[in-house]
Amino acid sequence: MIDDARFGLNRTVTLAGPLPLEGGGSLAPITIAYESYGTLNADKSNAILICHATTGDQHVASTHPITGKPGWWSRMVGLGKPIDPSRYCIICVNILGSCMGSTGPSSVDPATGAPYALTFPVITIGDMVRAQAQLLDHLGIERLYAVVGGSMGGMQALEWASAHPNRVKAVVAIATAARHSAQNLAFHEVGRQAIMADPKWRGGDYYGLNDPPIAGLSVARMAAHITYLSQDGMNAKFGRRLQDRPNGEKGVKTFSFDADFQIESYLRYQGASFTDRFDANCYLYITRAMNYFDLIEAHGGQLANAFRATKARFCLTSFDTDWLFPTSESKRIVHALNAAGAPVSFVELASPHGHDAFLMDVPEQNRVVEGFLRAGGI
Amino acid sequence: MIDDARFGLNRTVTLAGPLPLEGGGSLAPITIAYESYGTLNADKSNAILICHATTGDQHVASTHPITGKPGWWSRMVGLGKPIDPSRYCIICVNILGSCMGSTGPSSVDPATGAPYALTFPVITIGDMVRAQAQLLDHLGIERLYAVVGGSMGGMQALEWASAHPNRVKAVVAIATAARHSAQNLAFHEVGRQAIMADPKWRGGDYYGLNDPPIAGLSVARMAAHITYLSQDGMNAKFGRRLQDRPNGEKGVKTFSFDADFQIESYLRYQGASFTDRFDANCYLYITRAMNYFDLIEAHGGQLANAFRATKARFCLTSFDTDWLFPTSESKRIVHALNAAGAPVSFVELASPHGHDAFLMDVPEQNRVVEGFLRAGGI
Repeated sequence: MIDDARFGLNRTVTLAGPLPLEGGGSLAPITIAYESYGTLNADKSNAILICHATTGDQHVASTHPITGKPGWWSRMVGLGKPIDPSRYCIICVNILGSCMGSTGPSSVDPATGAPYALTFPVITIGDMVRAQAQLLDHLGIERLYAVVGGSMGGMQALEWASAHPNRVKAVVAIATAARHSAQNLAFHEVGRQAIMADPKWRGGDYYGLNDPPIAGLSVARMAAHITYLSQDGMNAKFGRRLQDRPNGEKGVKTFSFDADFQIESYLRYQGASFTDRFDANCYLYITRAMNYFDLIEAHGGQLANAFRATKARFCLTSFDTDWLFPTSESKRIVHALNAAGAPVSFVELASPHGHDAFLMDVPEQNRVVEGFLRAGGI
Repeated sequence: MIDDARFGLNRTVTLAGPLPLEGGGSLAPITIAYESYGTLNADKSNAILICHATTGDQHVASTHPITGKPGWWSRMVGLGKPIDPSRYCIICVNILGSCMGSTGPSSVDPATGAPYALTFPVITIGDMVRAQAQLLDHLGIERLYAVVGGSMGGMQALEWASAHPNRVKAVVAIATAARHSAQNLAFHEVGRQAIMADPKWRGGDYYGLNDPPIAGLSVARMAAHITYLSQDGMNAKFGRRLQDRPNGEKGVKTFSFDADFQIESYLRYQGASFTDRFDANCYLYITRAMNYFDLIEAHGGQLANAFRATKARFCLTSFDTDWLFPTSESKRIVHALNAAGAPVSFVELASPHGHDAFLMDVPEQNRVVEGFLRAGGI
């Protein structure tokens, strides 16, 4: 594999396609940005695909080019970590519809020479996974040793097992669901409406004006961020503690609309910094794809039917304080896998960090993932 | 009491004040809009004050002048209802800082002849209650038979008992808390940032332009509305059901950003209709007051100290599916009342409707409130 330019960090490939889309029509060509870590073995049996969450990217274990921060899952992926590049060929793909190099609404439509904006088709999790499958074709990988993902990445992992049953030997689906609850649909709708309410959104046509709808995108991120944390974790981390003032004064109530409380300041920072690295239209498309995802409806109301053809082993985990993708959602998938006769292990992990726990330092999560992957024989 | 113009529906009075404010300074004069139902008895011992929630108003059991809908607590207040005007003299006051007739940021500042907008002082729950006390002075009511409120109305009821212990004989505090959790601080901050992100907010100076920041206010309401409902209740009421199309077509996924899901359409409606009846600056001020409210901090970290001087009886209720003001918040108050030696009854009621349950048809809530009030002897 040495000197195979298809592998390595910061790869981009443009595939001729066409990529048929669930909503009708197709997309061609498509550009896919991805990274790989480690070396594909001779019989191409050690490839692990890692699927990122809503606003994640391909830099799973490499420095983010905009923020300069370590890869988003450096705790899980790396030498000596559960997903170890000395053992596996690890691939992480920027999802279709995103803004880190793969084709999405901020990309230039080759047919017009202008950014797609809202002429980009509304895509689905299935479309994202189909694009990943086309990339694997390009890489010469027929079958994945495992597909691994948390949150929306877990949805992709489940979709892989369901739609491409012969291409996946093992699935790790973390803190995810077979479909969004009404509450999750609702939070995403608030985020989209916050973006669309920003006059700078301009119906999506803000590219090239150097004045994107950052106010709306920031509010969307703030609302979403609340759902990533647990009530108790937020109370423990922030409580009602007051922010120290820029002049050094200790926390006082200013009786104004300043960010007196630390949680207010934290949320404003999360919202504002997000807009440095993410595109508003992409946020619309990706949350829409998540809302449409419904493995139950797609299989006649019987989730077990989604997994009838799969030969994969499954590992599911949830977190006890996650209220965005609560344990009950994982259990529903486990029951369906049982009904379909698929081998599955499941554990609810303890963490104070809510949904975000899957990205954080949870040693037991690392042990579970490492043990499950090793059991596959590589 | 017949022909006493101080009593009846749609009353407004301007009090000379001054009203000293917790954040410093004072406000004078202040206008208070209120309603009364029933007749004050000879010894003025049958007055019940009902405190409304964040975006409520004085029309507790009369038709809302803008929406034309029945009063917000017609299930609780009225002939044959637990709070019966044939028995009690019921008073409901539009809170200071609101926009239904009482002095607030949308009112004209008599000193300038222009609306206060953001020159209005940041007020507190204590200030709202002090304004209500000045109204009671005007009405000649020294002591309340009871003060009753849910949500932020419950905060006012607790503040009444704490700050004016000799003026309250009984307190009914429903689905409330002694202070906001970090998560509740966070949701309110999102709402305020949504309003302030709207360029039409114009730093608060949008009055007279006939172009208020309805987009931002609508997003704020949508986010808040999610917190009023329970996860299970939302799943039961909306689930993932699709909206029928305007052309009569049955629910289909449009693969667009239309409100395909019923929950999306519902939230958009809730947001938009809210802007017909509420003022964006008022929303900022009232949520800020709620965030500042902290009966624990105000009493040296010991909530029991808030109730040392009170002679009132207390009735607290919570709802099992309320995650905005969960039962644990009520229990904390109950424990403090126990520690202070105050008589208190508490019940957690069952309802699928989350925080909104206190406004809905919950027969057991009605029985609890009616029984508690009757036990006072009137």
